[in-house]
Amino acid sequence: MSRSSARARAASKGAETRETILAHALGLATRIGFEGLTIGRLAEDLRMSKSGLFAHFRSKEALQLDILRMAGARMVETVVKPALSVPRGEPRVRALFERWLAWEQSPSLPGGCPFMAASFELDDRPGPVRDFVVQNLRDWMDTLAGAARIAVNEGHFRADLDCEQFAHDCQGIGLAFVHASRLMRDPKARARAARAFEALLDACRAPGYAISHPSAAAPSGRRR
Amino acid sequence: MSRSSARARAASKGAETRETILAHALGLATRIGFEGLTIGRLAEDLRMSKSGLFAHFRSKEALQLDILRMAGARMVETVVKPALSVPRGEPRVRALFERWLAWEQSPSLPGGCPFMAASFELDDRPGPVRDFVVQNLRDWMDTLAGAARIAVNEGHFRADLDCEQFAHDCQGIGLAFVHASRLMRDPKARARAARAFEALLDACRAPGYAISHPSAAAPSGRRR
Repeated sequence: MSRSSARARAASKGAETRETILAHALGLATRIGFEGLTIGRLAEDLRMSKSGLFAHFRSKEALQLDILRMAGARMVETVVKPALSVPRGEPRVRALFERWLAWEQSPSLPGGCPFMAASFELDDRPGPVRDFVVQNLRDWMDTLAGAARIAVNEGHFRADLDCEQFAHDCQGIGLAFVHASRLMRDPKARARAARAFEALLDACRAPGYAISHPSAAAPSGRRR
Repeated sequence: MSRSSARARAASKGAETRETILAHALGLATRIGFEGLTIGRLAEDLRMSKSGLFAHFRSKEALQLDILRMAGARMVETVVKPALSVPRGEPRVRALFERWLAWEQSPSLPGGCPFMAASFELDDRPGPVRDFVVQNLRDWMDTLAGAARIAVNEGHFRADLDCEQFAHDCQGIGLAFVHASRLMRDPKARARAARAFEALLDACRAPGYAISHPSAAAPSGRRR
């Protein structure tokens, strides 16, 4: 084996190890919180040496950022991209919300959506980690508002809809779901989220669309 | 001075010191989080000795519980009790929500409502502190649902309203407000919360009440 191909293999092995560590750290951070996730705590959990981990991540902050970068990329892959292949308008808005709920409950995230977890923890802690969380949430709200705007253009949602308010209200439904399911352990949490979302759609829908698409006017009966 | 009155004075002085420490600790906990609030960190902040603080609070957990008990009592005093003197029905529901928003923004709570702050931090940490937070939030949601039920009985809200769903949706509006104002620093956070709340009331109102009380049917124009 030439020296350069050996070097390439070592680098790719290093990148793989790094990915494995990050995936584990992401799950751990959603459970114990981002502030509790020190390199020491992660080393303990993975039965690795602290110095080995320091070789991959220079600091706790670098580790937090790498975890959130991985989470952001995964969220785009599993929530946003698949929704883009769903028909424009209300169906796509629904797909985004439902895929977000599935992401929040995915087994690889035992503590739920890392951005939700981080958002309450970091709101008073200025710095690059907080900035990254805010930027990511802003992107997500823009995606929701954009999908609502398309639904307006398609004639599914009413023309005077405030699409930023729609995104804000969706976020409220998501937060209430996290709250009800994770903290209050309310067995109806999923049903409550679905019902709140249907009520929001009812209030957004263009009257013409509701009449021409009876399934859009009363899907809540099926879903509740 | 007799020995017993000296003892009583010392005890009352002790209780006063304890209250002052707790009030400070409450503000600090809302900013740095409940997990970060160790007796050492509080001692540093107050420039007191750790041993002096240990005399008042036996452990970090006891301190957390005492802080939350104080917060719970204050929330009842400033949010719930005053709303009970507001006329039954929609006005009382409004008073509860508006007083909660004011509590969340009160200067004595620099990091906002301690139950909101604690709820995301403690959702995965079983124990008496989490139990206390859950019980307190359950009481709050019961208060909201109860006020909605009175509004149904008064004919302000429609007869088929799911009052638990109403409480859940109010909590979502509150959570979205905390999120928008504290994390996203959205200057429209207060207006968005007001608008979401008016939309929720619009969806809850009994048709007869909206017609006989035109101010109830369209207060959103004034408030938005």
